[in-house]
Amino acid sequence: MNILLVYAHPEPRSLNGSLKRFIVDRLEGQGHAVQVSDLYAMGWKAALDGADRLDRDPEARFAPDADSRHAFDHGTQSADIVREQDKLRWADALILQFPLWWFSMPAILKGWVERVYANGFGYGVGEHSDARWGDRYGEGSLAGKRAMLVVTAGGWESHYGPRGINGPIDDLLFPIQHGILYYPGFDVLPPHVVYRTGKMDAARFAATCDTLGRRLDKLFSTAPLPFRRQNGGDYAIPELGLRPDLAPGRTGFGIHLDDAQPASLLHVAQPGGEQGAEREQDRARRHEAQAAAHAEGLAQ
Amino acid sequence: MNILLVYAHPEPRSLNGSLKRFIVDRLEGQGHAVQVSDLYAMGWKAALDGADRLDRDPEARFAPDADSRHAFDHGTQSADIVREQDKLRWADALILQFPLWWFSMPAILKGWVERVYANGFGYGVGEHSDARWGDRYGEGSLAGKRAMLVVTAGGWESHYGPRGINGPIDDLLFPIQHGILYYPGFDVLPPHVVYRTGKMDAARFAATCDTLGRRLDKLFSTAPLPFRRQNGGDYAIPELGLRPDLAPGRTGFGIHLDDAQPASLLHVAQPGGEQGAEREQDRARRHEAQAAAHAEGLAQ
Repeated sequence: MNILLVYAHPEPRSLNGSLKRFIVDRLEGQGHAVQVSDLYAMGWKAALDGADRLDRDPEARFAPDADSRHAFDHGTQSADIVREQDKLRWADALILQFPLWWFSMPAILKGWVERVYANGFGYGVGEHSDARWGDRYGEGSLAGKRAMLVVTAGGWESHYGPRGINGPIDDLLFPIQHGILYYPGFDVLPPHVVYRTGKMDAARFAATCDTLGRRLDKLFSTAPLPFRRQNGGDYAIPELGLRPDLAPGRTGFGIHLDDAQPASLLHVAQPGGEQGAEREQDRARRHEAQAAAHAEGLAQ
Repeated sequence: MNILLVYAHPEPRSLNGSLKRFIVDRLEGQGHAVQVSDLYAMGWKAALDGADRLDRDPEARFAPDADSRHAFDHGTQSADIVREQDKLRWADALILQFPLWWFSMPAILKGWVERVYANGFGYGVGEHSDARWGDRYGEGSLAGKRAMLVVTAGGWESHYGPRGINGPIDDLLFPIQHGILYYPGFDVLPPHVVYRTGKMDAARFAATCDTLGRRLDKLFSTAPLPFRRQNGGDYAIPELGLRPDLAPGRTGFGIHLDDAQPASLLHVAQPGGEQGAEREQDRARRHEAQAAAHAEGLAQ
C-alpha cells in the first residue's frame, strides 16, 4: 500500500527524527511504498496567504476561501500545494507525526493543513440540501483512506488522563482527529502517543519502537475510531446537533463517537480476531486514570 | 491600561480587518494604550527553529526547549521574539483575534505562541517539589494580566453547540484558553465568538460591534473563567489529576473550571453588580443548544 508520512520536527537528531526513520523502515519492510513530507527540511511555507493563488490580482481583496477555490478549480495553485495534494491522492494511509507543542500540532504542520486542504479538496465538497450538509465528516475527497497520529509529549501520561490537568489526550486531539482528518473523509485510527519524552533512554526507546511497530503492522486492519457520519441520520440538518435520542443528555466531544457501532461497519480492510480485544484494550488504556507513581521529571 | 492585540488575518479588507480597527478605536476611545501585532503585515516567521537562538552553533543538535532556554537566559533570542515578549510585559491585557481555521488558530498565530513563549518565559518557570509543579496554570510570568479571544467562525452557532457536530466551542477553545493563556498565568475572560461570517451584512456588523464593544468596555471588570489553579490544592502532585472529591465521577475539559469558585477570588479588578448576571448569561448562552432555525448558508 501507499503511505504518506507528514513529519514536523526541526531536528533530525531528535526523538522524533529517530521515530520517523523507524516508521519509514518498518513500513518499507512490510512492503509498503512510503513518501515523507519532512516539512522543516522542505522549508514549508506555513502561512496561508494570497501568494497561494498564482493568478491572483495583487490589488484585489484576498478572500482565503474564494481564492483557494478559484486556484483549485483553475489549476493556479502554488506548486508546493499541488505536490502535497497529489501525495494525498496517491496515499492509502496518512500518518501525521509531530511533537505536541502547546497542546496542538506545530505551526508548520497547521500551515500544511490550511494550505493543502484547498476549498474544493479539503472542504467545500458536495452539496447542501435538506438531507446533506456537504461531503464532510466521513465523506469527502479523502474517503476510503486511513489516517493516524504519532505524537510525542513532554508531560506524563497522567497529566493527559481523563482527569489530568492538561485535559484528556483524546479531547486535545479531537480537533485534529475529527476536525482535520475525519472531516474530509479519512478513517481515523487510534493515535499513538509517547509521553515523557525527556526521560527517554535506550531501553525505553526500544520498547516505544516495539509498540509503535506493532501499531504500524496493523495500519490497514485496526478498527478506526467510530466517529459518527454527518449525513448518516445521526444529526439534524441543517442545525447539525446530535439527535436527542443518541447519547441522551450527554454533551462534549465524546458523543460524536458511536461506541455501539459494530466494527463491521467501520471499513475494516482485514478484520481479524485480535482487533476487538485491541480496541477494548485501547479504550481501557485511554479512559483509565494513570495512577501509577512515576519517577521525577519535568513536564515540559 | 495597556492592551496588546495580536491579530492574524492576511487581508485588511476582511471582516477581521474591520473588527480589528473597531477594537483599536474602541479601546483607545476608552483611554487605553493599544499596541497591535499584525502578524501577516509584520511578515511574522511562523516556524520555530534553530535561527531563533542567535548564538547557536549551526552544527550542534537543535533542542527546542534547551536552545530557547539558553537564548532567553543569555540575551541571544531573535529580535522579533524579544519585541513580542516586551509587548507582553508592557500589556495589562492581551487580545488574540483570529478566524477559526480548522478548529484552531491560524498557523501564523500558533507560531507566535511557540516562538514568543520561550523556555523561562512562557514555560519552564518556577520550581518542582512535592507541593508545586512549576509556576503554571494560574501562576507564571504573565500572572496578573488578562486575556481574551476574539474569534470568527464560518459555521453556525448550533454547529458549535453542546451537541453540535464540530464540538462545543468552549471545548475547541480549551487548548488555547487553558493550555496557552491560563498556563503562563493570564486570567482568561470568556471568549467573544462571531459565527456565520459568510452572512455578514451592515446591520449584523453593527450589532456585532455593539456586542463586542460592550465586552471591551468591561475588559478589566468581567469575571474571568474560573479555571482551577494547579498548585492551589485541587490537583495531586506530581500526577496532576484532579482530586477525586472535586467534580466527582466527571471527566473532560469542564472539570478544570470551578463553577463553585466565588468571583471575589478571581482577581476581578473592578467588581460590579452586573457581572454575576453577565457571567450567568454567558454560561447559559454557551451551554444551551441553539435550537432556532436559521436561514440557508454554507458552513465554511
